[in-house]
Amino acid sequence: MSDGAPRLRSLLTVPANRADLVGKAPRSAPDAVFLDLEDGVPPDAKVGARADARVAAVGLRDAAPAMQVFVRVNALDTPWFEGDMAEALDPGLTGVVVPKVESVDDVAAIVEALALADRAGLGILVGIESAAGVARADDILQAPVRWCYFGAEDFVADMGGVRTTSNQEVLYARSRVALAARLGGVHAVDQIVADFRDDNRYIHEAEEGRALGYRGKLCIHPAQVPLAHEVFTPSPAAVDHARRLLAAYEEAATRGEATIAFDGEMVDEPMARRARAVLAAADEP
Amino acid sequence: MSDGAPRLRSLLTVPANRADLVGKAPRSAPDAVFLDLEDGVPPDAKVGARADARVAAVGLRDAAPAMQVFVRVNALDTPWFEGDMAEALDPGLTGVVVPKVESVDDVAAIVEALALADRAGLGILVGIESAAGVARADDILQAPVRWCYFGAEDFVADMGGVRTTSNQEVLYARSRVALAARLGGVHAVDQIVADFRDDNRYIHEAEEGRALGYRGKLCIHPAQVPLAHEVFTPSPAAVDHARRLLAAYEEAATRGEATIAFDGEMVDEPMARRARAVLAAADEP
Amino acid sequence: MSDGAPRLRSLLTVPANRADLVGKAPRSAPDAVFLDLEDGVPPDAKVGARADARVAAVGLRDAAPAMQVFVRVNALDTPWFEGDMAEALDPGLTGVVVPKVESVDDVAAIVEALALADRAGLGILVGIESAAGVARADDILQAPVRWCYFGAEDFVADMGGVRTTSNQEVLYARSRVALAARLGGVHAVDQIVADFRDDNRYIHEAEEGRALGYRGKLCIHPAQVPLAHEVFTPSPAAVDHARRLLAAYEEAATRGEATIAFDGEMVDEPMARRARAVLAAADEP
Repeated sequence: MSDGAPRLRSLLTVPANRADLVGKAPRSAPDAVFLDLEDGVPPDAKVGARADARVAAVGLRDAAPAMQVFVRVNALDTPWFEGDMAEALDPGLTGVVVPKVESVDDVAAIVEALALADRAGLGILVGIESAAGVARADDILQAPVRWCYFGAEDFVADMGGVRTTSNQEVLYARSRVALAARLGGVHAVDQIVADFRDDNRYIHEAEEGRALGYRGKLCIHPAQVPLAHEVFTPSPAAVDHARRLLAAYEEAATRGEATIAFDGEMVDEPMARRARAVLAAADEP
Repeated sequence: MSDGAPRLRSLLTVPANRADLVGKAPRSAPDAVFLDLEDGVPPDAKVGARADARVAAVGLRDAAPAMQVFVRVNALDTPWFEGDMAEALDPGLTGVVVPKVESVDDVAAIVEALALADRAGLGILVGIESAAGVARADDILQAPVRWCYFGAEDFVADMGGVRTTSNQEVLYARSRVALAARLGGVHAVDQIVADFRDDNRYIHEAEEGRALGYRGKLCIHPAQVPLAHEVFTPSPAAVDHARRLLAAYEEAATRGEATIAFDGEMVDEPMARRARAVLAAADEP
Repeated sequence: MSDGAPRLRSLLTVPANRADLVGKAPRSAPDAVFLDLEDGVPPDAKVGARADARVAAVGLRDAAPAMQVFVRVNALDTPWFEGDMAEALDPGLTGVVVPKVESVDDVAAIVEALALADRAGLGILVGIESAAGVARADDILQAPVRWCYFGAEDFVADMGGVRTTSNQEVLYARSRVALAARLGGVHAVDQIVADFRDDNRYIHEAEEGRALGYRGKLCIHPAQVPLAHEVFTPSPAAVDHARRLLAAYEEAATRGEATIAFDGEMVDEPMARRARAVLAAADEP
């Protein structure tokens, strides 16, 4: 993408303590995996799963070097957050996923915990999945945060509402998070679809998410990975247009021109940025 | 509900000066009634209806002690607000309903008027039903306000828009009010359905409202009360789960534990709060 | 409308440098036209089109004195903005349309450029059509801005999203802009429909926009003008009601009364304002 962040069309969650599932994760070739210490691991297994997460991260990097690997720690207000940050993060990770982030103070606490753990180089991906998180998304979704996901299930539970297949109950929050992410230069990943056998719903939701400006979608099962790629990969025509546009724009820049005509459109830096995002989503240099 | 506020699955409006309708109000067994001095009473009858409201409140408390009784006064910018607050509020009411609240200054004026009338103990339920009210809902929906309703008809009229059965024209405002209410710890009651013969629409809207996080729905006719209860009452299975979860959580708390595993989930204070809300909505202690 | 601003049920865009299309613009009798220097004119023709815009403005005023005429300049961050403001604005215009306005600083820059060009008397119509514009609509949509349009195509492109016929991907932004406009006393004009042969979509969208509080709709083709008028013109019954309500209200005002009963409703200044808006939309004095 335009700022060099790796694309996350698909972000597959795997319980950190399930070596069998971790080993299979590369098969569906997701853009990214997160090794989960939160929802995917029961309370009495959480401490032990930290070492598993480090072993798994090393194994995945060896098995699939192009795949981005994250670890999702437990939320800041749980008894596990500090230990997870201190003990579960391999230095070769792309970043850490922190669920239920609700304020800039939370982001500061993440930065501090990373520094304490000597992991300041890791990227930060936050979950926006509560009423407070949505309400403060404008403040949270700024550097140093690089990615976020919108967690519809937890948001609706926090609202005391009900999840429906219409997604009407989350349209406001899902739209607001996408807008905040765009303004802060953060890449937004769309909500999960819990029923992993319902391909039609997954594709429909991925198209909704893409229309709203999301760059990819959470996958709770490997079968959802190809569906995410189908929706979030630019078409060959879009890639070709972006490549030609950028070539013309960059050639003009060497002559000191900031704005050019291309295919009858005026091309300026914002359009060039969008073209770079298309190429990044297509994984073209 | 979690903070001890009585549940308002149904909030039935009855003109304060219609003793016949007031007398019938308990028959449908709504959780709450408000005796209306605003839309339900024509201008030339408003002053006289204040005494009716006091008589009616006493009568309803005798007839249906479990029913919450409110009086809805006229809006702050009308010539009736002060007199309504001074003369229409029986001290045994659950609270006062104030329509078209638009700012924290409005809330302060309500608090002051209650104190002047020696009614400081009454709860405050505000109507959010104008562009300004929606825009400032985050500020308004805080203590001492305990409940609110979203007034779709007046909001849309204030916008110069058109009400439709799709509810798309209010999805933004209705969602934003629900979020603000959740953040401020205020219980939100959903919009009216004007056509009281259209049960399907009422149920469909109640389900929409519940999905968004509303705790109940306005009723302009007794026939709507059982529909509201049908949608806003938790299922027996949900009640049973909440009861068992709370028992385990509170037992753990006696041992000094703040987080426990229950049915494979991690249970913490937010989940306990939701469980208490389920029991309150089911009217279980 | 209530503040004396001319109604804009239809706002037809015509490339400023296309004298043939300019000449035909009055035939569909739109409420307003804007002579476009932005999207409608290719980069190499933009400078030359400034003089065309001035000639066209004079010609349209002569041909259709009741039609409001605007010029849309290029956006503030383009190399053409200053020259457009200095050279393209006939003093007899209703106002200037500035696309992609994103901040109050942008509004201040427009005011300054109008003053520099000795065109301080022109009205300002801004395009809200980017993530930043939507996020700051509350601040932007205030006096001296009098009108705005919501630009769905550019907003979605800026979000990195996808336009769909469902309009779900813009419901949040379209609603938020309508609310901000209402609060700031700015008249909002709804998004374009790019396929000018699809009358059903145009009418459906116009009804959506009207429900949300928009006062009119952009037209990219003369065939869309009568469709906009069909949707945004009040019915005879609504006009009659507004006329009688205002007569009663103004008669009461001569007796010093601020609130009256009319047709069983309480009529106050906000209702009088809405009635005036209905008459203005119907083009009745």
